Amino acid sequence: MRYSGLFPKTLKTAPSGAESLNHKLLVRAGYIDQLMAGSFTLLPLGFRVVEKIKEIIREELNKTGAQELLMPLLHPRDIWDQSGRWSKPEVRKIMYQFKDIHDKEFGLSFTHEEIVMDLLSKFIQSYKDLPVKVYHFSTKFRNEPRAKSGILRGREFMMKDLYSAHTTEEDMYLYYNQIKDIYPKIFKRIGLEVKVVEASGGVFTPSHSHEFQVLCRVGEDTIFYCDKCDFAQNKEIFQGQEGSKCPNCDGKILTAKSIEVGNIFPLGTDFSINQKVFYTDANGKQNPIWFASYGIGPTRVLGTLAEVFNDENGLIFPKSVAPFDVHLISLSKTEEAKKIEEELEKNGFEVLYDDREVTAGEKFATADLIGIPVRLVVSEKTGGKIEFKQRNKKESQLLTLEEVLEKLK
Amino acid sequence: MRYSGLFPKTLKTAPSGAESLNHKLLVRAGYIDQLMAGSFTLLPLGFRVVEKIKEIIREELNKTGAQELLMPLLHPRDIWDQSGRWSKPEVRKIMYQFKDIHDKEFGLSFTHEEIVMDLLSKFIQSYKDLPVKVYHFSTKFRNEPRAKSGILRGREFMMKDLYSAHTTEEDMYLYYNQIKDIYPKIFKRIGLEVKVVEASGGVFTPSHSHEFQVLCRVGEDTIFYCDKCDFAQNKEIFQGQEGSKCPNCDGKILTAKSIEVGNIFPLGTDFSINQKVFYTDANGKQNPIWFASYGIGPTRVLGTLAEVFNDENGLIFPKSVAPFDVHLISLSKTEEAKKIEEELEKNGFEVLYDDREVTAGEKFATADLIGIPVRLVVSEKTGGKIEFKQRNKKESQLLTLEEVLEKLK
Repeated sequence: MRYSGLFPKTLKTAPSGAESLNHKLLVRAGYIDQLMAGSFTLLPLGFRVVEKIKEIIREELNKTGAQELLMPLLHPRDIWDQSGRWSKPEVRKIMYQFKDIHDKEFGLSFTHEEIVMDLLSKFIQSYKDLPVKVYHFSTKFRNEPRAKSGILRGREFMMKDLYSAHTTEEDMYLYYNQIKDIYPKIFKRIGLEVKVVEASGGVFTPSHSHEFQVLCRVGEDTIFYCDKCDFAQNKEIFQGQEGSKCPNCDGKILTAKSIEVGNIFPLGTDFSINQKVFYTDANGKQNPIWFASYGIGPTRVLGTLAEVFNDENGLIFPKSVAPFDVHLISLSKTEEAKKIEEELEKNGFEVLYDDREVTAGEKFATADLIGIPVRLVVSEKTGGKIEFKQRNKKESQLLTLEEVLEKLK
Repeated sequence: MRYSGLFPKTLKTAPSGAESLNHKLLVRAGYIDQLMAGSFTLLPLGFRVVEKIKEIIREELNKTGAQELLMPLLHPRDIWDQSGRWSKPEVRKIMYQFKDIHDKEFGLSFTHEEIVMDLLSKFIQSYKDLPVKVYHFSTKFRNEPRAKSGILRGREFMMKDLYSAHTTEEDMYLYYNQIKDIYPKIFKRIGLEVKVVEASGGVFTPSHSHEFQVLCRVGEDTIFYCDKCDFAQNKEIFQGQEGSKCPNCDGKILTAKSIEVGNIFPLGTDFSINQKVFYTDANGKQNPIWFASYGIGPTRVLGTLAEVFNDENGLIFPKSVAPFDVHLISLSKTEEAKKIEEELEKNGFEVLYDDREVTAGEKFATADLIGIPVRLVVSEKTGGKIEFKQRNKKESQLLTLEEVLEKLK
């Protein structure tokens, strides 16, 4: 892609009112635009990153036999009355609920447990129809009156929510633990190290849940974790303090701020019982369905990447989810640059080629701000070679095109 | 994919209350499920079809230099007040508008002109920043009190909406006409023949717009078209009657019911002027932006395919957007079937393999209902060969695996 054709260009200054770093950097670099507090457009660069995040999640979930679908966002009240959640004060606070001009009551989805149960009620008769594992990427809405964390916490955001339905508690936990193991792999592929943290079940379940937390000083969560083993708990449930002895080993408890990028809930049979969805077992007996749900917020992951990977000049995207593989700059070497662009694309690499007639300084600043992992420069100085520089390294190298292709692999 | 693992299985009977054929067939075959009137889950089969429809649209639009992004669905009232559309009676009737618990007013998107203008206001300064061509696939909401046409007309549906912004009327029409020519190609790739029909601009523009209509007796639209040339108008604006002489040639006017699968609007400068978004031309003068928008409804296209391509046994999907390339059935030849499945997948074909232990009749009925274009059967009768049958043909052939691979190409 040619930078001259990309919408929009980078901005010289952060928008007024932007308080968080991810908001400032992602807006300046042209990844997102704020429509209102807590609501953002994914601009073409941001859209590309989120698509790559989604593709990694999709690949890993499909391997577990999960199937992708797409459920509606506008929910009739009656289905949320079945579970009893519609009227809960903590739900009324965050769920957009309204009457239309015909006095029909609707809510905007902040989660989809009730809708999945409704689906199961129509298609699950016997134990032979279980387990079911379905997920979608869809918009979620939460009424957040003070949304000041950029794309980390919004009124409207993207969520991957997976739901699994099982005949027994044992089978549910088998899959729950499989997902608990796969999530850190997903985040690692995206470029993020996570802590798996025990937490409360919130408006979802009285059982404990697990959160996937990225350590980050601007995080809204506080976690306590062991410096030796994998013990980790959210401050909501941790009983102790920094420096305590770990309950599981002789390690010491540390504390940190963190960003929750995923969460999983062993919901049990409450939804099934409340919504009266049962399956028939091999003996002809009716039983409730064991149910669990599993979330990852791709747009929040984008915000987390911006918070974690940056320097004074801009963003530094991990290779796996960067909007392009290569940022190509030509300083009065247009023909050479076009050949390199063509050769790279022929080899399957995505190139953002800055073809503008602006100063070298402006091109370098744009490249640093956008944060594509590899920058290539051709100029009088590079002779017949190409300057290869990684965004997260200081030094650069002069390489032939063949060497560049080899390095990019 | 193994049919035993697919969620959900086909249903023996159509759901009660389903009035339209697309609703009955798509629900029975497991493509969609109704959450409430006019609101459907895309089940895994339906999701696959819609993803393929989206990919065809994406490929064709990207060729024109259009860029994909994703805009929010929940819109603050003030932005819709800028264009004056919030308070229009015809908008209030179809747009979900509500106050949240903090008395803030929001609307749910049924279109995104205002939001694109807001984006342009932040990023477009001079003529050098134009044209801009951006699109997204996103959820749209319309308050349809009597939504009885299945997935053809819903309260919630998927829309591809493209927006283009230009310096001059001429440049706008250049792109408008380019899209007018590309749309029929897109639909042809999907398997649908469309008529390009002149129509009114509705709540979008006082100018005429163009609709892309598929002839279908259950369509909600009525069009008049020439039997010789490409003259075609929606009944809203056509002045004449069936049998009249065509105003453009010596052909005769015919009339038909049709389904609108796409529409394009040359919006002009109204949005730009109302929302005060201007660009500076080469002489330093401020000018309004010429604006146009272009829609295709991928979920409505799914419904149209179901209405147009079916027989008494079920659906008949075009090859390009079928959920799978091949429906494989084994009658007590499991090992052979697995080998064929593996070989087909190795060659890049998507296979739905019915591995259930049910009768041959049940497997054949399922295959016919789902409507994948090619059915392969291995059984005692087929010997070392494979029975190859196209869903839209009566006769079948016995082929070797190599011949099957050749035929599928």
